[in-house]
Amino acid sequence: MFDKEIYVERRRMLKQRLGSGVLLFLGNDEVGCNYLDNTYNFRQDSSFLYYFGLPFAGLAAVIDIDNDREIIFGDELTIDDIVWMGTQPTLHEKAHSVGVDNVMPSADLRGWLDEARKKAEVRYLPVYRPEHALKLWRLLDVKPGAEQPSVDFIRAVVDMRNHKSPEEIAEIEKACDVTADMHIEATKIIRPGMHEYEVAAMIEYVAARNNCGLSFPTICTINGQTLHNHYHGNVIKEGDMVLIDAGAEMPSGYAGDMSSTICASRRFTDRQKSVYDIQVASHLAAVEMLRPGVAFVDVYEKAAEVICSGLKDLGIMKGDPAEAVKAGAHAMFFPCGLGHMMGLDVHDMENLGEVYVGYDGKPKSTQFGRKSLRLARPLEPGFALTIEPGVYFIPELIDLWRGQGMYTDFINYDELEHWRDFGGIRNEEDYLITADGARRLGKKIPLTTEEVEALR
Amino acid sequence: MFDKEIYVERRRMLKQRLGSGVLLFLGNDEVGCNYLDNTYNFRQDSSFLYYFGLPFAGLAAVIDIDNDREIIFGDELTIDDIVWMGTQPTLHEKAHSVGVDNVMPSADLRGWLDEARKKAEVRYLPVYRPEHALKLWRLLDVKPGAEQPSVDFIRAVVDMRNHKSPEEIAEIEKACDVTADMHIEATKIIRPGMHEYEVAAMIEYVAARNNCGLSFPTICTINGQTLHNHYHGNVIKEGDMVLIDAGAEMPSGYAGDMSSTICASRRFTDRQKSVYDIQVASHLAAVEMLRPGVAFVDVYEKAAEVICSGLKDLGIMKGDPAEAVKAGAHAMFFPCGLGHMMGLDVHDMENLGEVYVGYDGKPKSTQFGRKSLRLARPLEPGFALTIEPGVYFIPELIDLWRGQGMYTDFINYDELEHWRDFGGIRNEEDYLITADGARRLGKKIPLTTEEVEALR
Repeated sequence: MFDKEIYVERRRMLKQRLGSGVLLFLGNDEVGCNYLDNTYNFRQDSSFLYYFGLPFAGLAAVIDIDNDREIIFGDELTIDDIVWMGTQPTLHEKAHSVGVDNVMPSADLRGWLDEARKKAEVRYLPVYRPEHALKLWRLLDVKPGAEQPSVDFIRAVVDMRNHKSPEEIAEIEKACDVTADMHIEATKIIRPGMHEYEVAAMIEYVAARNNCGLSFPTICTINGQTLHNHYHGNVIKEGDMVLIDAGAEMPSGYAGDMSSTICASRRFTDRQKSVYDIQVASHLAAVEMLRPGVAFVDVYEKAAEVICSGLKDLGIMKGDPAEAVKAGAHAMFFPCGLGHMMGLDVHDMENLGEVYVGYDGKPKSTQFGRKSLRLARPLEPGFALTIEPGVYFIPELIDLWRGQGMYTDFINYDELEHWRDFGGIRNEEDYLITADGARRLGKKIPLTTEEVEALR
Repeated sequence: MFDKEIYVERRRMLKQRLGSGVLLFLGNDEVGCNYLDNTYNFRQDSSFLYYFGLPFAGLAAVIDIDNDREIIFGDELTIDDIVWMGTQPTLHEKAHSVGVDNVMPSADLRGWLDEARKKAEVRYLPVYRPEHALKLWRLLDVKPGAEQPSVDFIRAVVDMRNHKSPEEIAEIEKACDVTADMHIEATKIIRPGMHEYEVAAMIEYVAARNNCGLSFPTICTINGQTLHNHYHGNVIKEGDMVLIDAGAEMPSGYAGDMSSTICASRRFTDRQKSVYDIQVASHLAAVEMLRPGVAFVDVYEKAAEVICSGLKDLGIMKGDPAEAVKAGAHAMFFPCGLGHMMGLDVHDMENLGEVYVGYDGKPKSTQFGRKSLRLARPLEPGFALTIEPGVYFIPELIDLWRGQGMYTDFINYDELEHWRDFGGIRNEEDYLITADGARRLGKKIPLTTEEVEALR
């Protein structure tokens, strides 16, 4: 948690932007994994954390702008709670620590909202957990599935959270340092014969021994061509590449997010290097472009063009690389986005809507590949984001597109057949947009084949 | 997953017991942590796992007893799913692997149930996740909070799951072996100056490198008197005791659950040993009693009596130990239960109701301490359970009871004041009730102070 003045100031700015009405913030509850009391690690809702700081379950908060009043709703501990969970500050003390003077029992929230709705609009953010849907039903008679989150509220929150303050950047950078250590340690220990889960275990151990959680489920796979592969049961063999995408989450909630692709043998093969170098060139071209005013969609297109150009040199693609990207042919090898905002969420504010976070409200493309781009808007100082181009050979996609005769002007399917079992390569770093450019967040991890091999 | 015949036979037995009607099984969904797609580790519902084996999100199943028909409801993967998550067997193939021939799309479940309800009662089990409450509403028009789970269905499931089969015992024993390694490794590495989270990190690393998850959130604390203490931020000092309660969960879902109390220094102090020996005596007295036909409440009372007797020798308690237990005075030092069933859930079937699992439907006590006893019924062969007496000095409880003048015939409060900062001790092992006694599950972990010190 930050100093209370930070939360007070954030709420002041939010009130100023929205002008009137009542803002309802639903904190997260504990979630039972296989029964009610066997809970997953508690994670507070990120917007609740941003404005109210308290990482405790069972809370809600309101900002009554018209009456300039802020209230946290929750319940005090009983003696049974203390026996089982230890002493804690009172709810009043917790609220005070984030600059909120008013607390009320949870049971009073419905009645308070009933009164408030007589005079003002009650606005809320999108729901992403079933418990939130049930709460809105109980509190505001909103049927599950019929929620109408406030776009004004969303856009005000997004605009504030998109611009990271110095204390936020410091937390993100700490998360990135631990994230880098996770990747560096994995790069050192991978040996043929290990199971993927043994590597994943070490990655997560590095996070945990630094008092960090994970900002998302770890990817650690010899099948890097599968983008979100959470299976860790394979044995790593000589000649494999291991793709790792993993990040640490600070106790404050801020996230790191990096990817590495590591040779299971001591060295990459020449064939692996030929594609790896394309991925690195794409990565560096993207980083080169980062500065305020540049639209991230242009960075994406440049990164994609570099990939097409490199694959053309290998004979896998043909035609004009820029035209290939415009047509969407690059998505055969690069079917995901180039990067995304990060902060209190690893895909920052994904629950508030990527169209607001990454597109400033403008519509997204529906083209395969391009539709997965989470960030497209012009960059501004204070944006924290990832750069993660990749080159993937996905057998199912190759067969599908070849069968459909897709992009035969740009893809040399006969040559591609020789590469169908190649796998996938991704390297990912985190960047902060500064006043006149960008800087990497956190320690450097190996990016090139030479840098990876130096740690093997 | 076990062989398909095991699931077929389990369903056959369940149908035979219940005789008629429709049984609805709701599988678990993915749960978003801080946004929809940043999910917690998926965990299938345990009863779904027990009867249908499939560890995948988004499934439901019905057993139509009257028509001897079993159907799994779910959806096939799209090309987008395959690009992001890799190839998988089809739903039909998955269903076939557990002996179910019929699959239908999720969207058809509501209509299928509408038809079924015209002819038969649709029974379901208790819900423990908000998503289940929403599903019952969508599928059966049951308002959240107004669920009426079927007691017959619950009791049939509990009776089957309470009696572990050889293949289940083998899985539990594997979980217990990994669990033991987690405790043994922690016992070796603890050093003054470490943070609690560094020890917890190692415990969880041992689970992960064995391809196991955690059967519950790890407890690793210098404040062992707090029963469910999940704070790991303290620095471990010379003279502290570290209480660890942690367990591994197999990929199959079966759980281990053990506790250790470890001296931070190389040796326990005499003062620590004096209480530790009481805890061990209580533990051994309980284990000694385990056999079919013995009511576990009697084992609990014996364990509590041994604790009272030992504390009397230290001058902390007084009067007759058996009388103290009857009155409830032991709960000052032993406010929790002695043990619980374990299996696919670490507190097995807690969501189905402890009164059915551990009390065979008979009412639980409301007395402080005794009300936390999860298991009381006569033991039967095939029961897997924990033995975990503890001796705790809880300052808040001491102050509360002293202020209220509670149990002054049995508690010597003046002497107790000298012990208020002692902390807490628990050692926990897992046992299987056999035809004529009981046997420990998994490798042995240190139980006595001598055994702990031998690993330091």
